Amino acid sequence: MRLSRAFLPTLKETPAEAQIASHRLMLRAGMVRQTSAGIYAWLPLGWRVLQKVEQIVREEQDAAGAQEILMPTIQTADLWRASGRYDAYGPEMLRLKDRHDREMLFGPTNEEMVTDIFRTYAKSYRDLPRNLYHIQWKFRDEVRPRFGVMRGREFLMKDAYSFDLDYAGAQKSYRQMFVAYLRTFALMGLKAIPMQADTGPIGGNLSHEFLILAETGESQVYLHKDLLDFDVLSKPVDYEGDLSATVDFWTSRYAATDEKHDAAAWAQVPVGSQVSARGIEIGHIFYFGTKYSATMGLSVSGPDGKPVVPEMGSYGIGVSRLVGAIIEANHDEAGIKWPDSIAPFKVAVLNLKPGDAAADALSERVYAAFDPDAVYDDRPDRAGAKFADADLLGYPWQAIIGPRGAANGMVELKRRATGERVELSAEDAIARIKGA
Amino acid sequence: MRLSRAFLPTLKETPAEAQIASHRLMLRAGMVRQTSAGIYAWLPLGWRVLQKVEQIVREEQDAAGAQEILMPTIQTADLWRASGRYDAYGPEMLRLKDRHDREMLFGPTNEEMVTDIFRTYAKSYRDLPRNLYHIQWKFRDEVRPRFGVMRGREFLMKDAYSFDLDYAGAQKSYRQMFVAYLRTFALMGLKAIPMQADTGPIGGNLSHEFLILAETGESQVYLHKDLLDFDVLSKPVDYEGDLSATVDFWTSRYAATDEKHDAAAWAQVPVGSQVSARGIEIGHIFYFGTKYSATMGLSVSGPDGKPVVPEMGSYGIGVSRLVGAIIEANHDEAGIKWPDSIAPFKVAVLNLKPGDAAADALSERVYAAFDPDAVYDDRPDRAGAKFADADLLGYPWQAIIGPRGAANGMVELKRRATGERVELSAEDAIARIKGA
Repeated sequence: MRLSRAFLPTLKETPAEAQIASHRLMLRAGMVRQTSAGIYAWLPLGWRVLQKVEQIVREEQDAAGAQEILMPTIQTADLWRASGRYDAYGPEMLRLKDRHDREMLFGPTNEEMVTDIFRTYAKSYRDLPRNLYHIQWKFRDEVRPRFGVMRGREFLMKDAYSFDLDYAGAQKSYRQMFVAYLRTFALMGLKAIPMQADTGPIGGNLSHEFLILAETGESQVYLHKDLLDFDVLSKPVDYEGDLSATVDFWTSRYAATDEKHDAAAWAQVPVGSQVSARGIEIGHIFYFGTKYSATMGLSVSGPDGKPVVPEMGSYGIGVSRLVGAIIEANHDEAGIKWPDSIAPFKVAVLNLKPGDAAADALSERVYAAFDPDAVYDDRPDRAGAKFADADLLGYPWQAIIGPRGAANGMVELKRRATGERVELSAEDAIARIKGA
Repeated sequence: MRLSRAFLPTLKETPAEAQIASHRLMLRAGMVRQTSAGIYAWLPLGWRVLQKVEQIVREEQDAAGAQEILMPTIQTADLWRASGRYDAYGPEMLRLKDRHDREMLFGPTNEEMVTDIFRTYAKSYRDLPRNLYHIQWKFRDEVRPRFGVMRGREFLMKDAYSFDLDYAGAQKSYRQMFVAYLRTFALMGLKAIPMQADTGPIGGNLSHEFLILAETGESQVYLHKDLLDFDVLSKPVDYEGDLSATVDFWTSRYAATDEKHDAAAWAQVPVGSQVSARGIEIGHIFYFGTKYSATMGLSVSGPDGKPVVPEMGSYGIGVSRLVGAIIEANHDEAGIKWPDSIAPFKVAVLNLKPGDAAADALSERVYAAFDPDAVYDDRPDRAGAKFADADLLGYPWQAIIGPRGAANGMVELKRRATGERVELSAEDAIARIKGA
């Protein structure tokens, strides 16, 4: 994308309302614009990142055997009356009436709807197990939305729902999602730690939150250092195999949020392994047995012909929130430092003197090697502004091309994450970026 | 995807409420399920098709120079008061109040919001031209939703908005979208005809609807046969070049809906070239000048430093409606016949005798050659049910593998579009499908 034609607007001033780094940087980098309290439009740079995050989530859900669907945003109140949650949900639910005065709502989650869909089709034990997920915009009418996309009202969530014949099957589904979550977050360069959690309005008796550590986290967390040191991606995973050992590794070491913190158990962790920090929740998984299947009349015929009420779980990832969380974990004073896997563009080509024949030719050459995964700063602006924008927007690589270097075919390559700079021939610079 | 584990539920009975072929077939094929009047959940098969349609739309928008963003579904009433459309829009607008009693709405379109976003950032003529689009769920509270996804209430629309410095620029943007629409629909195997249209509530004085011909179309259309015979994809397009000749070809030949039909002009078309048929609208483009930029205070400084009010247009494609329209144009008594470019899966491998060693081995081999773009019918059902499902779901290719053929390494290959069947070695069958 040529910046002279792109809609990648950056702001010079830090907006006053932004209290945390990710919110500040997303506004300054022109990733999002608030259209009303807690509701954001995603501008081209932000939208590219959101799509990359979404795609990593999708691919790991598919790998784990979940199947993608898309449920609508608007639901009927009757569906929620059937589960008893319509009155219980409170003012965070955005309620509305259609032109025929029917009570509807903008879905904050989809346990009821997916159970209703599944019961229409599932008739026999042969139709189990299944895990259905979707990635859809949700609405929760927070009384005080804040922290940008970290606590918005309209937000993008991946929610999966598993249906199993019995408890053992449901535990297997739970472990599949547990491991899929570890891998999903690791693929984004995040160290997410599963912690036992309260189940809240979803219900059930087994639940883990996944949190990353960040100074601006909303919860205090306590964990064993081993969990931070473990490399989730070092081995491939067989989702159909036995995942107990992996789950046991994580659940046998201490990790808890404030809510669940147990001073006696914490005292057993060697002092040198105790890590206490702030954490941001990015995922939450629940096993809740037959809570929804029983109340909503989902039943299949078992292998012996008798009716069986399936066991269920649900599994959420805050996809739009993740964009903020990733920035909280990857930034410095100058701006964002995108992990390679979710960078909006891999390379920014900074032409320091558009109009200079050598600089133009070399810039076009490097740009062509990476287009459409590159931006080309061909604007007639001063070099300092280009450096500042590239650092702010956080492209993993900057290929800096000035008239003097260009005359000798040389490019200055900057790695955003480390600040490392090196002067290379165009050919070597391209090879270095491609090798990374 | 192995059908023994997939959530691809088909219905044997034709649902009584479905009046047109696409609605009937989408329900029977388990592509969608109605969750309330005019609101649908997309099940795995339907969701795959919808994503393919969306991706073709996206790629051609990008090729034509438009830049993707994502605006939220919920908008403030104030934004619509600024343009004067809040009171004018009528009961099709889904209005609601949040917990603080602020008036909001579920967006039926985005002229106001995109103008508001753009005016925040665009300051100078150098920020023009730009074309911003998004693909987002919209809501129009139809009084009588019907025909399945063809006339739903919550529907997926691609809407693009162009901003130009002057009339000539706006006409160039209009032509870019005009040509992009022709190509987008052709890439889905559709013959879409642009026709002069009324501008309705969007406003402005230049507008074209794009329609495909289908018996169940909602409008009567009249057109010159040349337009049906023209091959849109025969030449590559240069979106930055002069597109006038292409647009002139289409606009100089007669094509009109009932509303705009002109008997005198129609009489000038040679009788042998007159085509009169029913049509389904799948896209609509508008030039409306400064209607929104002027009322909403969008202004940039021109090359001479004086303020300029940008000229705008908007360009819509009914993405979810297209899925229905494509089925209307591609089906027979037995079911859907997907064009290759948007088929949910390219191949269905029908194992007529799961458990037979030769049939299993050969089925796995063919399946592995196309996974994940194939389904494998490994269910313990009778052959007739598998044939019927594969025809209904409309995969372009069926690889039919029975124990007798498998013993000799032979596959019966069926092309759904033509019904043609041929017996081939597995190797040749795989090559034939790959070559297509």
